[in-house]
Amino acid sequence: MNQESKFQYEKFLNHISLDCVVFGFHDNQLKVLLLRMKFTKEWALPGGFVKEDESLESAATRVLKERTCLDNIFLKQFKVFSDPQRSNTNPAVQDLIDSGANPDQSWFNQRFISVGYYALVDFSKAEPQPDYFSDLCEWKSLNEINTLILDHLQILNKALENLRMQLNYQPIGYNLLPDKFTMPELQKLYETILGKELDRRNFQRKMLSYNILIRLEERKTGGAHKAPFLYEFNLENYQKALQNGLYGGW
Amino acid sequence: MNQESKFQYEKFLNHISLDCVVFGFHDNQLKVLLLRMKFTKEWALPGGFVKEDESLESAATRVLKERTCLDNIFLKQFKVFSDPQRSNTNPAVQDLIDSGANPDQSWFNQRFISVGYYALVDFSKAEPQPDYFSDLCEWKSLNEINTLILDHLQILNKALENLRMQLNYQPIGYNLLPDKFTMPELQKLYETILGKELDRRNFQRKMLSYNILIRLEERKTGGAHKAPFLYEFNLENYQKALQNGLYGGW
Repeated sequence: MNQESKFQYEKFLNHISLDCVVFGFHDNQLKVLLLRMKFTKEWALPGGFVKEDESLESAATRVLKERTCLDNIFLKQFKVFSDPQRSNTNPAVQDLIDSGANPDQSWFNQRFISVGYYALVDFSKAEPQPDYFSDLCEWKSLNEINTLILDHLQILNKALENLRMQLNYQPIGYNLLPDKFTMPELQKLYETILGKELDRRNFQRKMLSYNILIRLEERKTGGAHKAPFLYEFNLENYQKALQNGLYGGW
Repeated sequence: MNQESKFQYEKFLNHISLDCVVFGFHDNQLKVLLLRMKFTKEWALPGGFVKEDESLESAATRVLKERTCLDNIFLKQFKVFSDPQRSNTNPAVQDLIDSGANPDQSWFNQRFISVGYYALVDFSKAEPQPDYFSDLCEWKSLNEINTLILDHLQILNKALENLRMQLNYQPIGYNLLPDKFTMPELQKLYETILGKELDRRNFQRKMLSYNILIRLEERKTGGAHKAPFLYEFNLENYQKALQNGLYGGW
């Protein structure tokens, strides 16, 4: 093990960790980036600790850059997880200890309060990288995820709940979709996040009424039927519309 | 100083604090509960630390019970404040040290990451109580608040921003208003939170269309003109409507 890859726990604040729910959209499915732990082979959310001179935002940005090779990720803090039993008695912690990263095992055994972030990334641009404690970093569809270490499944579900609630207030479509997309793709994204089917005509009518989409001259190629138009976001109008929420303000 | 009132820092986790923005509604104004520091006479948000066996929610509930004498307060975590410079170099920390609470001054001088909560309380029921570090605990109107210690003004503004965004998703009216209220009072609450005037007829029409209000037979007494009707919330319908947001779901 060389010095660079060694986990230097002395640099980090005690008691504070962060966990990131990284969402991507691919093949009409909402995906989440997960790590497989080296020893137990259990799956976990990407996460990390906070250096003494770092804000939480800087720490989360650093962690996500390491896991995805992306800069400028859309990141949103959504909840702190602080059940006193969430980590210090959990067998998953043994995995971190087994990694041999820390000569002082008590560091991982302390109580951690974890700050949850969700991140929205362009699936096609991310390059998943495992961390010191894992041997795989992969995208998983929501329906493939049954168990995660610690309280990570709860963190994931809470992130989804926030994503749903913030759909009208955050540039979620803009950050998850490629630059050019079709109306069916946009609708599928909304359906996946909301967990329900939407009426095609109503969706299109509402979406167009916000004046946040630009219809391009190009059409999507490769489909069997009549090719759908491609759209891109009018970012200025989008940002303005989100300030009041997409349903309009009071 | 008796033993009970002594601040026992040994019981608390290092690095983690919480700050509460407690909102109340009175005389048609949104009010915030503040403490005046004993020594510098600066104003601060109520806050506290987390015991080793407590979740953040339990800690916030405990702190708010101490400051308001109320149980079952509506509490919502909204953001963590983690700028590395937010507390450990701030002169306001001297106030805590001057209090003599802590024989080991370095405890207050450490870096704290603070979890922000907003709370909604029935103004008429709260009984403000100063804490160990303060000599006054009082409601202040938003327009009276110019400066606060540390980054507390930023925390307050962020709480307001969240309140605004969550107006359609959280039972904000229910928690801030007395059990019975008039339509003008409800409108004034919305106007105060949104920071803008609303059209009286549109507001009433929208509000009634959600089917979340019950008009009572009584009217408000004491006014000079025709007394307005009193309303109460239909809590079951209210909770259902909030699940989709008051503008209705997709």
